[in-house]
Amino acid sequence: MANSHSSIVIAAGLSGVVSAINNGLAITPPMGWNNWNAFGCDVSENLLLSTSQQILSLGLRDLGYNYVVLDDCWQDPRGRDQNGKLQPEASKFPSGLKSISDHLHRQGFKYGMYSSAGEMTCARFAEGSLDHEVDDANSFAEWGVDMLKYDSCYHMGRVGTPTASFNRFKAMSDALKSTGRNILLNLCNWGEDLVHTWGMSISNSWRITGDIYDSFTRPDDLCGCNTLSPGDVNCVAPGTHCSVLFILNKVAPFADRSIPGGWSDLDMLEVGQGGMTDEEYKAHFALWAALKSPLFLGNDLRSVSASALTILNNPAIIALSQDPHGRSVTRVQRDVVGVPKDNWGVGETHVWSGYLHNGDQVVILLNAGDEDMQMSVSLAEIFVAFGPGGSAPHVKSDWALHDLWAHRMSDATAEALLAAKTEGERSRLLKKANWYNATEIPYAQGLANDDPRLFGEKVGVVEAGGVMKVDVKRHAAKVLRLRRVKKEGESFKAKGIAREERHERDEL
Amino acid sequence: MANSHSSIVIAAGLSGVVSAINNGLAITPPMGWNNWNAFGCDVSENLLLSTSQQILSLGLRDLGYNYVVLDDCWQDPRGRDQNGKLQPEASKFPSGLKSISDHLHRQGFKYGMYSSAGEMTCARFAEGSLDHEVDDANSFAEWGVDMLKYDSCYHMGRVGTPTASFNRFKAMSDALKSTGRNILLNLCNWGEDLVHTWGMSISNSWRITGDIYDSFTRPDDLCGCNTLSPGDVNCVAPGTHCSVLFILNKVAPFADRSIPGGWSDLDMLEVGQGGMTDEEYKAHFALWAALKSPLFLGNDLRSVSASALTILNNPAIIALSQDPHGRSVTRVQRDVVGVPKDNWGVGETHVWSGYLHNGDQVVILLNAGDEDMQMSVSLAEIFVAFGPGGSAPHVKSDWALHDLWAHRMSDATAEALLAAKTEGERSRLLKKANWYNATEIPYAQGLANDDPRLFGEKVGVVEAGGVMKVDVKRHAAKVLRLRRVKKEGESFKAKGIAREERHERDEL
Amino acid sequence: MANSHSSIVIAAGLSGVVSAINNGLAITPPMGWNNWNAFGCDVSENLLLSTSQQILSLGLRDLGYNYVVLDDCWQDPRGRDQNGKLQPEASKFPSGLKSISDHLHRQGFKYGMYSSAGEMTCARFAEGSLDHEVDDANSFAEWGVDMLKYDSCYHMGRVGTPTASFNRFKAMSDALKSTGRNILLNLCNWGEDLVHTWGMSISNSWRITGDIYDSFTRPDDLCGCNTLSPGDVNCVAPGTHCSVLFILNKVAPFADRSIPGGWSDLDMLEVGQGGMTDEEYKAHFALWAALKSPLFLGNDLRSVSASALTILNNPAIIALSQDPHGRSVTRVQRDVVGVPKDNWGVGETHVWSGYLHNGDQVVILLNAGDEDMQMSVSLAEIFVAFGPGGSAPHVKSDWALHDLWAHRMSDATAEALLAAKTEGERSRLLKKANWYNATEIPYAQGLANDDPRLFGEKVGVVEAGGVMKVDVKRHAAKVLRLRRVKKEGESFKAKGIAREERHERDEL
Amino acid sequence: MANSHSSIVIAAGLSGVVSAINNGLAITPPMGWNNWNAFGCDVSENLLLSTSQQILSLGLRDLGYNYVVLDDCWQDPRGRDQNGKLQPEASKFPSGLKSISDHLHRQGFKYGMYSSAGEMTCARFAEGSLDHEVDDANSFAEWGVDMLKYDSCYHMGRVGTPTASFNRFKAMSDALKSTGRNILLNLCNWGEDLVHTWGMSISNSWRITGDIYDSFTRPDDLCGCNTLSPGDVNCVAPGTHCSVLFILNKVAPFADRSIPGGWSDLDMLEVGQGGMTDEEYKAHFALWAALKSPLFLGNDLRSVSASALTILNNPAIIALSQDPHGRSVTRVQRDVVGVPKDNWGVGETHVWSGYLHNGDQVVILLNAGDEDMQMSVSLAEIFVAFGPGGSAPHVKSDWALHDLWAHRMSDATAEALLAAKTEGERSRLLKKANWYNATEIPYAQGLANDDPRLFGEKVGVVEAGGVMKVDVKRHAAKVLRLRRVKKEGESFKAKGIAREERHERDEL
Repeated sequence: MANSHSSIVIAAGLSGVVSAINNGLAITPPMGWNNWNAFGCDVSENLLLSTSQQILSLGLRDLGYNYVVLDDCWQDPRGRDQNGKLQPEASKFPSGLKSISDHLHRQGFKYGMYSSAGEMTCARFAEGSLDHEVDDANSFAEWGVDMLKYDSCYHMGRVGTPTASFNRFKAMSDALKSTGRNILLNLCNWGEDLVHTWGMSISNSWRITGDIYDSFTRPDDLCGCNTLSPGDVNCVAPGTHCSVLFILNKVAPFADRSIPGGWSDLDMLEVGQGGMTDEEYKAHFALWAALKSPLFLGNDLRSVSASALTILNNPAIIALSQDPHGRSVTRVQRDVVGVPKDNWGVGETHVWSGYLHNGDQVVILLNAGDEDMQMSVSLAEIFVAFGPGGSAPHVKSDWALHDLWAHRMSDATAEALLAAKTEGERSRLLKKANWYNATEIPYAQGLANDDPRLFGEKVGVVEAGGVMKVDVKRHAAKVLRLRRVKKEGESFKAKGIAREERHERDEL
Repeated sequence: MANSHSSIVIAAGLSGVVSAINNGLAITPPMGWNNWNAFGCDVSENLLLSTSQQILSLGLRDLGYNYVVLDDCWQDPRGRDQNGKLQPEASKFPSGLKSISDHLHRQGFKYGMYSSAGEMTCARFAEGSLDHEVDDANSFAEWGVDMLKYDSCYHMGRVGTPTASFNRFKAMSDALKSTGRNILLNLCNWGEDLVHTWGMSISNSWRITGDIYDSFTRPDDLCGCNTLSPGDVNCVAPGTHCSVLFILNKVAPFADRSIPGGWSDLDMLEVGQGGMTDEEYKAHFALWAALKSPLFLGNDLRSVSASALTILNNPAIIALSQDPHGRSVTRVQRDVVGVPKDNWGVGETHVWSGYLHNGDQVVILLNAGDEDMQMSVSLAEIFVAFGPGGSAPHVKSDWALHDLWAHRMSDATAEALLAAKTEGERSRLLKKANWYNATEIPYAQGLANDDPRLFGEKVGVVEAGGVMKVDVKRHAAKVLRLRRVKKEGESFKAKGIAREERHERDEL
Repeated sequence: MANSHSSIVIAAGLSGVVSAINNGLAITPPMGWNNWNAFGCDVSENLLLSTSQQILSLGLRDLGYNYVVLDDCWQDPRGRDQNGKLQPEASKFPSGLKSISDHLHRQGFKYGMYSSAGEMTCARFAEGSLDHEVDDANSFAEWGVDMLKYDSCYHMGRVGTPTASFNRFKAMSDALKSTGRNILLNLCNWGEDLVHTWGMSISNSWRITGDIYDSFTRPDDLCGCNTLSPGDVNCVAPGTHCSVLFILNKVAPFADRSIPGGWSDLDMLEVGQGGMTDEEYKAHFALWAALKSPLFLGNDLRSVSASALTILNNPAIIALSQDPHGRSVTRVQRDVVGVPKDNWGVGETHVWSGYLHNGDQVVILLNAGDEDMQMSVSLAEIFVAFGPGGSAPHVKSDWALHDLWAHRMSDATAEALLAAKTEGERSRLLKKANWYNATEIPYAQGLANDDPRLFGEKVGVVEAGGVMKVDVKRHAAKVLRLRRVKKEGESFKAKGIAREERHERDEL
Repeated sequence: MANSHSSIVIAAGLSGVVSAINNGLAITPPMGWNNWNAFGCDVSENLLLSTSQQILSLGLRDLGYNYVVLDDCWQDPRGRDQNGKLQPEASKFPSGLKSISDHLHRQGFKYGMYSSAGEMTCARFAEGSLDHEVDDANSFAEWGVDMLKYDSCYHMGRVGTPTASFNRFKAMSDALKSTGRNILLNLCNWGEDLVHTWGMSISNSWRITGDIYDSFTRPDDLCGCNTLSPGDVNCVAPGTHCSVLFILNKVAPFADRSIPGGWSDLDMLEVGQGGMTDEEYKAHFALWAALKSPLFLGNDLRSVSASALTILNNPAIIALSQDPHGRSVTRVQRDVVGVPKDNWGVGETHVWSGYLHNGDQVVILLNAGDEDMQMSVSLAEIFVAFGPGGSAPHVKSDWALHDLWAHRMSDATAEALLAAKTEGERSRLLKKANWYNATEIPYAQGLANDDPRLFGEKVGVVEAGGVMKVDVKRHAAKVLRLRRVKKEGESFKAKGIAREERHERDEL
């Protein structure tokens, strides 16, 4: 039966096995750009098209960021037209939405839009799609929309049990299917009503917490249950102003729920928005990638800094997101006691670890303490998912450590890229910088080929049965890809793979 | 696009954008007087009319207190009449309710009444409106009622999910609309069943905690989850006997839910009831105003003391409530560790901060510790809503501090006012005291005009990037309006405003 | 209006005002005997009738214990008869249930029986009344039943929301009403699904916690959320094996929910069962009385000890239960820190306080710490319900302290009574012992008459504004009735009464 | 009435009294083998049949392990056939499922299979039975299935209230009954929606926590509420990766819910999987037996070690599981403070105690602390269920202690057994080893006969009123059967039995 193992693993990920919503979309986490974090209600045709041009020019589309999403506030504030159809505000979108859609499609992008499963949108700008699902799905299809972000404000009390929320969102899922256009559905109910147990049946991703804000650890009262009972899974108040650390703690018990086609959404990226340090943004980005969150850029790309750009364009990190295995890292260690605390009393460290398609293991050591620290973790803990207590066969191998930030693009290159005046100049710079083009070589293929741009740089080895000790700066994360050192004549035991296979099954 | 910013802000507040219940009422938090806190079931025609006369005479109506509300216990204890209509107890209301209504309307007041979405009223005195919504709404309309406080006792098990509660209350909301009379609806379900996520769809305000009582910090077992798990947002036992501090902690995660037309209700005021000190009442009043709670006086105005009167008639504080921006302060800092504790083990400090329509920022430093303390807060924290970690552009300006209690009416004036025998005498005293008449000059206009009565007194400046240090007495609050010091040639960055705009969107 | 005060108080308690289930029963908490705690499934005609005789002989019936209740396990284990009717097990009840009922009625007792709102009874012995409500209510009526204890086991999933539970129990409430026989309904759903907010609409009492067991403080895992999160009001696992202390902590937030006609049930008494000390049983009994729990004796009365008997027959304590005001004491103080802990880590003190119909105040100082302690409480705290912070007018009076255990029957008398061979002998002993006969002089009348048997003995005075200091033994309670010392020419302020009236209204 | 006691006890356990699902199955907890823990999705005809042969050969079937269960992943990944019937994957099961069933039946086994009450199975391999219950139940019946493990993944939002879950599972329960084949139903909804209150009405067992994993104490984030609020009974996230200790803490409040015919399921055994020590596996196994969990072996029996085999084949432990009384041990003591903690901060001790049919008492002292410890427990605590505070009559007897691990099979015997080449050789070894054959002598009979193989070895006596002190190694459990030492002329009081009877009634 051993010979059937690897084929089953592939089958589970890619075909044969039934996959949730089963619309064939989002086999790896979707990537793109959304205007909300940087612009809020200040949306327009000009914003979308100038941004899409910038995404293209900076090589970000070909790194995978291929959805351009218009969030809330695009509607005419007077509401629906005389036929009950949603209509855009003409002054913001003088050419109409179909024109934007066509433009984006010609540029090789997919087009995303926004509505809410309520009587109004979250910004009350203006009407939501509750009880208008079929009409509105048809409008989206007519406009050439490829993805719908579907929010949960003003729900008219249809919340509080999974059944109430499921039915409310399923109405739109069904309506989208009925249009005949294959539209990716992104639910945004902030983790309410056990969405991690049913989101995958009707959508391609579902938000798992309240809204992110541009802070690494600051606890804010508006992020529900943050200051009084941090991370309480039963908390009924998702809120906003959730820090990166809060979101990580909140998602940890559900990190295994993402599957190809259906992903837990940690919310859009804050990288480049200005409220965090470079190390904080690196950690934020790498964890979002390894946790398989949809990766939507949230900053103003027309004024992006070199440091932000070189975080967002690191293919070795993006390859964690787009790995064909399609499963999130899980947290194998969390320490709070003894970790230096900041002004808000926050200080903790995490180790996250996860299997990758080629047998590598990604390990992220997060220091959210208030001082630089040496962190340590044993191979036994890193591979606990393959057998607790050091029983995983992996523990008996040596593992090479690859630092995935090693080949970050230089500031000089990035600045030149940002300053470049022509596409030709940019192309030459990108080529010289050894930039990765996933449109030409999908990540799965690059990984299979051991493309060096996806594997960072080898920085050491942990010997069999050993403990890894790593210096991690304050508010930073080390992101390591562990590659098994094959010994002569050794055949790695199938049992380990079999156990991994077991994790294809999630309790939902 | 920059030129559309300010107009959008106005639009969001006042027009164009869909606004929840959308009955045009309560664009700023409603103000008035309710008999319950001082009189309980001891209600009568005489009480209402003698009180309304006093409100008028003391100049309180023209400060904005223009609703006079008759709470529970007005019914004939035998219940409905032979036609199934609610009827008042004749001995208490010999002239009938319509006569009271007419009287109040002639005096320039609006008239509020009470019922419960249950089989009985909370005092069982006598029948509730559950399953009688249409009949009872018609009665209220016939009596000329302008506002209904709608309670939640004896709900016959129709509670426990948002859907159950929403439907129960929506029945009255719909019935009131059907009467043709525009009646403000005040829900009173104590924060149950996530009312902060749906209250605004069917009402103008919704209670967010159990009943207040006349104590600043005392934890009482009857205030649900107070002594065992204070502030637990999931608590299913709202209760009564909730202190000012408890209510503040409970509302903090939901402070952003109030919007023009729909307000979180922190319950009626206890100012002047006798259980708190002058400083405690000042803090209570200022926080209720800045948190945009409906402001209903709860004391016996026929025997009000000078000190209570001069708290309640301070226009600089009331202007926080009636600011056109229509958003609550949120809590940016809470400290418990290291704050001196009282006999009940309670001791904490808060900083609340919020944007005002003219670009000012209100900051309230609350010392609920058991000793006088020096409190400090940085501009970075004060403006965190515009960007965490000091990234808000506001942090780069100097800000002048205005103490909003500086021009509190003197005791001597208040005592003279209370002792005055004629309207003429009172008028002269009020005029001399520089009293504010919002009937003539609405707060929005006074604020736009920089009317000095609304801005307290400048007491200092915090320099750009700085930290404010303020001495705050035990159980007291400093209430400061921060006004940006404009520097020559400076143009304040639009980005800050854009971010603020983002907060127009709430996750519900 | 002042002249209407006292009449309103009476009205609220006795007439005029709508009262919940409104069947006229249980105007004061019901009293009696139930076989469960001592006998479990070991029930029989003989047990009931020999016990009822003993209740009569010991003078307990005339102290108020007038319900005799047959709990679970009375059914034929084969289930319903061929007509679908419940049937008793013939070997246990050879004369049939109607015969028992007639016998008890002749003795001046009321007859209680048991069923469950499920497919089976809790002991699976045998069928429950779910979906058989009308049939079974008719059976009970035919058997002359006066009270139904209605349990919640095997509910077929009809639980988890107040609506589900309410509807399940309402079916029996309606069925009982339809029989034409006025049957007291005692719900037993252990506090689930917010029964404290709807129990009074359909029943005369409702259990508020899991089952009691015969221990004062021992935390047992089977009492839900006891060892992990003691007293969590949201706990979904009521369980069994709940100690007296656990039950007190659990009911504290809901102590104000009992009203005449509808009472929170703390479960049947364990006094005399053998697992607690004499002081513990005294505290248990007094608190159950003052908290207005139904008072059902749970011990074997045919082998009752003198010490147990003299706890249960103290009329000064029973008068707290049967006071016409009909409201529970509430907890005004709870201390955990600094109180000596027992082997299980338990140790705390409480002060409970409550208004009585004649203006007296009952105060219970409970020492559940592991050593004798001096406890103290101020008049300000005792009267906090009339105004926090010492603002209650009561604080300005002196109060005489009456120890309600002072006139406990002597062991010698009790032993003689228990040893007596004839009714005549017992009568003489009771007469000599100054025993109280509530059948002749209802408690309301005795209290109005200042009958000395109901007022214990004066043991001191607390002066106005003062603090009471009392030595309380380990695991014991002091039970004091405070009587205001009237000063010459003084007229006690009406405001205090008005405030008390306010408490007629409960937030449910 | 005393003479009816013992007969009632028997009746309650075996007949007469209504018993929940009442299909006559699982009168004692079911035992067998399930492939999931060791093999996950790697299932096949060959695996099942080679394993069943091994169970037979090693004498495990006759020890009681008589169910062979095929878990998830048996389906054709393409889903149902053209008639909508579930179909096995032909390559894995070339002879078809009926053939496997026949084979197992011929070997004296019962055959178990798997489905999920959702749109897909948990491994998405492939379709679940939701809304296909009748079709699928018929398929199972046609295949000769004797037991269905029925999972809860992909439930389409039909969860979150007991009613929603109950109805979803009841559909399959009803469908199975309609087939005419008596099929044991094993629910697997991980303790959600209060399954402990309704599982017994429709099934023979119900899982009570998230999935077990092969660790004794390690807290894992994926086991819901483990690291943030361990053991919270309200936790809505059951998860996976639950340690033995976590499961024990989670089940403790519900340990009394199992009854003959319906059992709380602690999940399948990890014994022999490699992640725990020998002592940890012994403790795990003994506690699962004493807690009346279904006992399903989860390891690869074709490569079982001697140490694992001699844990699993100890009849003195299995006799705890199969005791006719049919009630779980409950926890009478839990200590956390002062117990040495491991790297994860975990360290605690428990004492579990329970009544056995013949009057013996089983006591398990669990040391989950990080060092060897002396543990102590008094007879008063051991017998607390018969009366708290030492009031149980049992406390007045001396009790002999029998160590149930004393006669564990020697490694040498086990190794010889595993190495044996023929059935004859194995038979001789088993006979020599004094192995127990429950097929010939049911446990009830062996216990009644005082068969020494079921009683371990007497290792001491605790005197009346005494305290037992026992040395327990780190991460180990002492498993003792206490046998009352009868004194000359003594007649043990019936009251104790009566009280025990009381526990026949559970609050559900």
